[in-house]
Amino acid sequence: MDIAAILKEIDAAMRLSPNRGRVADYIPELAAVDPGQFAMSIVLADGTQLSVGDAEVPFSIQSVSKVFALALALGRLGDRLWDRVGREPSGLAFNSILQLEHERGLPRNPFINAGAIVVTDAVLSTHAPREYLGELLRFIRTAAGDDDIHINQGVARSETETGNRNFALAHYMRAFGNLTNAPELTLGAYFHQCAVEMTCAQLARAGRFLMGVPDMPRLVSPERVRRINALMMTCGHYDGSGDFAYRVGLPGKSGVGGGILVIAPGRASIAVWSPGLNEQGNSKLGTEAVEMLARQTGWSVFG
Amino acid sequence: MDIAAILKEIDAAMRLSPNRGRVADYIPELAAVDPGQFAMSIVLADGTQLSVGDAEVPFSIQSVSKVFALALALGRLGDRLWDRVGREPSGLAFNSILQLEHERGLPRNPFINAGAIVVTDAVLSTHAPREYLGELLRFIRTAAGDDDIHINQGVARSETETGNRNFALAHYMRAFGNLTNAPELTLGAYFHQCAVEMTCAQLARAGRFLMGVPDMPRLVSPERVRRINALMMTCGHYDGSGDFAYRVGLPGKSGVGGGILVIAPGRASIAVWSPGLNEQGNSKLGTEAVEMLARQTGWSVFG
Amino acid sequence: MDIAAILKEIDAAMRLSPNRGRVADYIPELAAVDPGQFAMSIVLADGTQLSVGDAEVPFSIQSVSKVFALALALGRLGDRLWDRVGREPSGLAFNSILQLEHERGLPRNPFINAGAIVVTDAVLSTHAPREYLGELLRFIRTAAGDDDIHINQGVARSETETGNRNFALAHYMRAFGNLTNAPELTLGAYFHQCAVEMTCAQLARAGRFLMGVPDMPRLVSPERVRRINALMMTCGHYDGSGDFAYRVGLPGKSGVGGGILVIAPGRASIAVWSPGLNEQGNSKLGTEAVEMLARQTGWSVFG
Amino acid sequence: MDIAAILKEIDAAMRLSPNRGRVADYIPELAAVDPGQFAMSIVLADGTQLSVGDAEVPFSIQSVSKVFALALALGRLGDRLWDRVGREPSGLAFNSILQLEHERGLPRNPFINAGAIVVTDAVLSTHAPREYLGELLRFIRTAAGDDDIHINQGVARSETETGNRNFALAHYMRAFGNLTNAPELTLGAYFHQCAVEMTCAQLARAGRFLMGVPDMPRLVSPERVRRINALMMTCGHYDGSGDFAYRVGLPGKSGVGGGILVIAPGRASIAVWSPGLNEQGNSKLGTEAVEMLARQTGWSVFG
Repeated sequence: MDIAAILKEIDAAMRLSPNRGRVADYIPELAAVDPGQFAMSIVLADGTQLSVGDAEVPFSIQSVSKVFALALALGRLGDRLWDRVGREPSGLAFNSILQLEHERGLPRNPFINAGAIVVTDAVLSTHAPREYLGELLRFIRTAAGDDDIHINQGVARSETETGNRNFALAHYMRAFGNLTNAPELTLGAYFHQCAVEMTCAQLARAGRFLMGVPDMPRLVSPERVRRINALMMTCGHYDGSGDFAYRVGLPGKSGVGGGILVIAPGRASIAVWSPGLNEQGNSKLGTEAVEMLARQTGWSVFG
Repeated sequence: MDIAAILKEIDAAMRLSPNRGRVADYIPELAAVDPGQFAMSIVLADGTQLSVGDAEVPFSIQSVSKVFALALALGRLGDRLWDRVGREPSGLAFNSILQLEHERGLPRNPFINAGAIVVTDAVLSTHAPREYLGELLRFIRTAAGDDDIHINQGVARSETETGNRNFALAHYMRAFGNLTNAPELTLGAYFHQCAVEMTCAQLARAGRFLMGVPDMPRLVSPERVRRINALMMTCGHYDGSGDFAYRVGLPGKSGVGGGILVIAPGRASIAVWSPGLNEQGNSKLGTEAVEMLARQTGWSVFG
Repeated sequence: MDIAAILKEIDAAMRLSPNRGRVADYIPELAAVDPGQFAMSIVLADGTQLSVGDAEVPFSIQSVSKVFALALALGRLGDRLWDRVGREPSGLAFNSILQLEHERGLPRNPFINAGAIVVTDAVLSTHAPREYLGELLRFIRTAAGDDDIHINQGVARSETETGNRNFALAHYMRAFGNLTNAPELTLGAYFHQCAVEMTCAQLARAGRFLMGVPDMPRLVSPERVRRINALMMTCGHYDGSGDFAYRVGLPGKSGVGGGILVIAPGRASIAVWSPGLNEQGNSKLGTEAVEMLARQTGWSVFG
Repeated sequence: MDIAAILKEIDAAMRLSPNRGRVADYIPELAAVDPGQFAMSIVLADGTQLSVGDAEVPFSIQSVSKVFALALALGRLGDRLWDRVGREPSGLAFNSILQLEHERGLPRNPFINAGAIVVTDAVLSTHAPREYLGELLRFIRTAAGDDDIHINQGVARSETETGNRNFALAHYMRAFGNLTNAPELTLGAYFHQCAVEMTCAQLARAGRFLMGVPDMPRLVSPERVRRINALMMTCGHYDGSGDFAYRVGLPGKSGVGGGILVIAPGRASIAVWSPGLNEQGNSKLGTEAVEMLARQTGWSVFG
């Protein structure tokens, strides 16, 4: 299978796409990103990496960071983490508070905002925010095999200023006893975590530990790899998770910066980036590109 | 890998289980089933079939029938079906009506009751109920390679008598224009479809068309196989779908009769049955048995 | 205070109103009503009756019938009725099913559809539908002092045909054990009850028993009068009840046929009718007319 | 009618009550209040004041302050206030956030927490918090004709520390653009407003401006008096408003400190206080005492 040729074809198709979706505009740093960009990068089981497009342009990984934060938190706390967050798809938008009222402060899964805030909060029970962010960066850099990965402080600051909905979620969970630290402290760390910047090439490498392939960096146990992938499959795209599974057939996690990390277990770690979003808040071209890739490679886990 | 030995070990473990869950008791026919029964049957890619336990005892497949009904309806209507039912996990119980109000009569997916009722209703727009049931039985018999599969009329009758919640769903969708036929007619067919009885051995064979293996009965296209499996992964266990994906890592569909059909793409079609249910309404021992199987075989699709 | 002059002024103002709202069109019988009609009729504490406009034209009282049905049911069952229906405003639309799921089949109050269906069902536990409807008609005729009040069978039939949402509510409550009779039976009676036709003059007289004035027909005890009025105040206009209390300050009950029965305790029984509805489903001119009346008479109960 | 005798009888009955409810314990200052206390005070239309029990013991008026804050805000902003808050009963608990998601940040009425926070926020658009609190205290003191009314700073501080649910509401509304000031600023003022302390005798006098009687302090127009009373009737007791209207038949506003202000339009301003709360969070003995008073005086507005 000529992955390079497939990638080129995808790149060409995406470059021609008339509709690129809408760039997130709730903070100036994201609103200013050129919507014309597109990149895809793949690391294969033998370690080969292939990239097309703007694969060396750093972008804000945003909610893709939830995957690394979850892996880190499970390493620190083990299955105790599941006392504070569920493992079910939410059936609602990424920042819904309705579900929290219904289930008394217990978020449905670690990939909706409320759940990711709890995951960060859980690690902060033993780490100061600065330590936590240091450790998370180390985790990501080790995974990517690249030390040139940083937090964009301007983005973190802007998130804090416009983060009322996340503050509402955090205060609400604290009212139910499911937030150990002050909302300001946990959200401070959370907003910085979301402000990590990576290139598409770096992100594809950082996803290698989820490929379930022996030669790749082993940051978590094989069983945990499977479980994180399962969560990405059922909950990785908010209220578009079912459709992503239906169309692509691979576990993935998207971010509002337009990035998506997708895993083809045993085969590849795939990163795709294009800033314009579809109605569910996932990268429009990114989703289409991964769908095209899955179709042409037959990498769907579903047969 | 010695599947036969694994199966024996699972059977032994399940026979010893102190807690078998609660048998569904909303109709007398289900309430009367002996909770001590357990069966597992596996068809491998080479066609071999291995079974343990009560694999020749017929049971009511109930919601497992939704998989066959969906495959049939997609064959009849193609993607038009998706105008009337979504593809997202519901985040709510199997018979919730709340979501229908929120989304104006459009059920979230074809595996919750409301969605399955719409799927049946869609086929009934061109088939009389009797024809539809005949065709569905033919589909299942062909899939299983076995003509000795029937509908239990007593079960169908009891479902009708106690089916107020399903009548509520049907009337509610009709109020929003998303039910073409009279609720009585569509539900008549639906209750009969749920009353199909199969043995565990038959069910494992009937699932072969979803294995994505060339030698198996090809009842739907490979792309559709992948998509049905994807829906089983994200929506197959109601509000326990995320947990099933997390623990088992395989697409599956459960029924309130205690049966579960599980697909290991490219590898196996698995049926498991034990009448006692867990809190989410899925077979308790069945889920545990499949989890054990996935762990010992490494068949999880997630790496 | 010259009530006759006030009535004339209101009639003149309403006749000039450029926007009369939208006539209910879910059944042909209601859709065919001339939207240009308006009537108001008042019975004072001394028994005087004053009317303006089309006060002798019969219209479908629809949900206004819930007041008479409640009075009748309380007479039959007493406070036991409150085991099956609450007394709180719903905060939701008149036919919402969401609340029923949240509160497990217990409707919030007897003036939303679900609650009214339960009230009818409760009386049907001791009366056949025909008896119940006979008794209800007798109650209304006695209250109005007029035997020329009837049920429009065509309206009842049309309601039955389009009543999917009410069937959904009934089946849903039956699933929770809060409906004693078959949904078809209870709804048959309920749809006939809603199809009672009265003129505005008749309706004003029929409301006299709620005035709390000794000389008026005493069909229920003074304490029950107060309580029914309280329910009309907090729940009489669906999700517009708060606004009606705010603007008018009197207990009232509206129907989708455009009628409203309003009580000025100790002072008057008021009926108003105009077929066009506002966004909450209450008579648009009717509400405006009663607001004007309350302002000019100072009859608000709130000071 | 011998009000003094009725009051004595009520006091005696309440003193004997075996079940006094549960004192609010979410802040130490409220948890420490002696649950054995009871007081009732009535100002009649002729200005006479009658009191029984612990009518000179100051207590935290908490949500009863919402009545004064609303009157003040309407005086400052007029009907523009209604662009930011509704006038409908909520059908949900006093601090529900679910409704806010459903209605995009617009609280249902000014007497649930979210609505009261918006009312305070609205006045803070033209007043600094200190000025606002000064003006509110002046309003209450003028209404009561008593300058010895103060804010308990310890209570305000404790509210701030435990106020996560209110912070969630405030941040959430700000996310929808319905909070002008920083949540900390608005809630700072709000928590101080709730921490006003008054005796039962003072509260009864402070309610005189809502009696709709010419000789009483006229702090708002007669029309506004009626409208505030209407809101107290439909929304004054959270999710127990319908039941209060049903049992008592008078507009009232309760607070978690155990106080209730009740208005008998044209007849009396009534304050009652007992710290133990019922399940809806309203004073248990307070509600029973007012019900007894309404029954014996016949003051219900409903006939």
